[in-house]
Amino acid sequence: MAILFGGVPAVAKQWRKLLAEMLPTMEFRVWPEVGDPNDIEFVLWRHPKQGVLATLPNVKALFTMAAGVDHLDYDDIPAGFPIVRVVDPGMQENISTYAITWTLYFHRHFHAYEEQKARREWKVLPTAIPEKTPVGILGLGTLGTITARCLTTMGFPVAGWSRTAKSLDGIECFHGPDGVLPLMGRSKIVIVLLPMTAETKGVINAASLAAMPEGGFLINVARGAMVVDDDLLAALDNGHLAGAALDVFNEEPLTSDHPFWTHSKIRMTPHNASGPNVPARARQLADDILRIQRGEAPSQPVNRHARY
Amino acid sequence: MAILFGGVPAVAKQWRKLLAEMLPTMEFRVWPEVGDPNDIEFVLWRHPKQGVLATLPNVKALFTMAAGVDHLDYDDIPAGFPIVRVVDPGMQENISTYAITWTLYFHRHFHAYEEQKARREWKVLPTAIPEKTPVGILGLGTLGTITARCLTTMGFPVAGWSRTAKSLDGIECFHGPDGVLPLMGRSKIVIVLLPMTAETKGVINAASLAAMPEGGFLINVARGAMVVDDDLLAALDNGHLAGAALDVFNEEPLTSDHPFWTHSKIRMTPHNASGPNVPARARQLADDILRIQRGEAPSQPVNRHARY
Repeated sequence: MAILFGGVPAVAKQWRKLLAEMLPTMEFRVWPEVGDPNDIEFVLWRHPKQGVLATLPNVKALFTMAAGVDHLDYDDIPAGFPIVRVVDPGMQENISTYAITWTLYFHRHFHAYEEQKARREWKVLPTAIPEKTPVGILGLGTLGTITARCLTTMGFPVAGWSRTAKSLDGIECFHGPDGVLPLMGRSKIVIVLLPMTAETKGVINAASLAAMPEGGFLINVARGAMVVDDDLLAALDNGHLAGAALDVFNEEPLTSDHPFWTHSKIRMTPHNASGPNVPARARQLADDILRIQRGEAPSQPVNRHARY
Repeated sequence: MAILFGGVPAVAKQWRKLLAEMLPTMEFRVWPEVGDPNDIEFVLWRHPKQGVLATLPNVKALFTMAAGVDHLDYDDIPAGFPIVRVVDPGMQENISTYAITWTLYFHRHFHAYEEQKARREWKVLPTAIPEKTPVGILGLGTLGTITARCLTTMGFPVAGWSRTAKSLDGIECFHGPDGVLPLMGRSKIVIVLLPMTAETKGVINAASLAAMPEGGFLINVARGAMVVDDDLLAALDNGHLAGAALDVFNEEPLTSDHPFWTHSKIRMTPHNASGPNVPARARQLADDILRIQRGEAPSQPVNRHARY
């Protein structure tokens, strides 16, 4: 009875220590030291090496290490292999808080005051009134809905977009392919909280950015591939957009020659909006392993057909 | 029956227009065009010119233009002159949101990620967990209490300090001169939301900053004189403090040669955390004038003995 872990040694060490306390009878093996493949009952691996999963006959669950599961190579995961998401309870709160912090930062002109500071300029900008700053959220899943509710409570007029029609109290709802431009057209600040699918790739492009009002802001907390980098840069450079906060990028780590690094209107973080809390995740993992061993369903199974 | 307004022409024009709609029978005069001093029943003036108030025999209220009233020269205000605060309803929310935005900004390492961006460095910093970031609030008046409640809801362990003993559910309360250092000693982030009095002047100094844990942050939304600038700079430069967000300064506008302008660990705004909403203030002013004319008390009288 063993777990196979795939990942860098420092992270493996942290998980080994935590799981030794929580699941003392479970062996912890780190790829490529698989040992007897028949022993492996659980796999904990963000990017499983191609072909490896098919060599493990007794796996009861593949645990992903992210909320998003678009990175998985589904063709390489044997049919009948249950896939389970490992998210910690604070993760949704972390992502939502991340989006809200940048929303308030832009809304309160803190980006503009940074520029004024560099010029030693003391000038009071017009008072920021939440009621006059419409916020649009692309994605009304758990994360989008939490974020929409918080911002509505703060007084912002919030609208959301989802693939299929939704109805949320106090939130203007748009949906379907034709709903994207109207959502962006009424939103001074756009927050991207979509799952990554073929349909959401490149959703932030020249056309959708042009639909936004002059001086708008973009916050991307979902996946880098939803943004066409060159279109975002053009919108920032021609002044149509006033700023962007990005946690995710088309290529990660961001290559050192990427123009985002030196762009004064871009705020960025290295894909950690979710701020993984490893001890909390380990508790969820251990709990799910115990459930599966008792014959119960894990807490957050992934639908491999919908791919999210 | 007239209002005497003291202030720059652009602001006078804005108030004249708003009050003409709300109080159509009231004349609006702008200093120094006082006209017959007997006509003046209400004075709207942040810094009344010395000696002028004593020449107006029929004044029913002096309206200040700020939440803080420490700027007034009380010796120059005739006894019996009622002083009324003019704050708009959004102001408390604005100040609280200001403090919360910078709290989240520092808590989520956004300041450190800005530095990493300048170095093109992609490095994930330890996950920020609200439960492990104690926040201390100096001042438990309306603003301090609202801010404390919001941060507590977000999971931060919050403590507060007030001049006299207070008890607030879920918030560790310190008080009196001996309570300042213990409050600062347990707080990674300190928010200053005190009224300006002789006792609060210079409360943020070498000794109180030294009491804070290594790598702490200061947010000042109260008055500049509560901070000893050189002590704050020393704490930032020797690395004891990791950052500061300042809305208020010992001298305003901040002189162009002040070291704060170029300090990379300082975020600053030009004394507008309260983000005055002039139409909302005008409504409160008009409402108070009507109350006074009906013989009722104004909504927010100032206690001239306590001076806040």
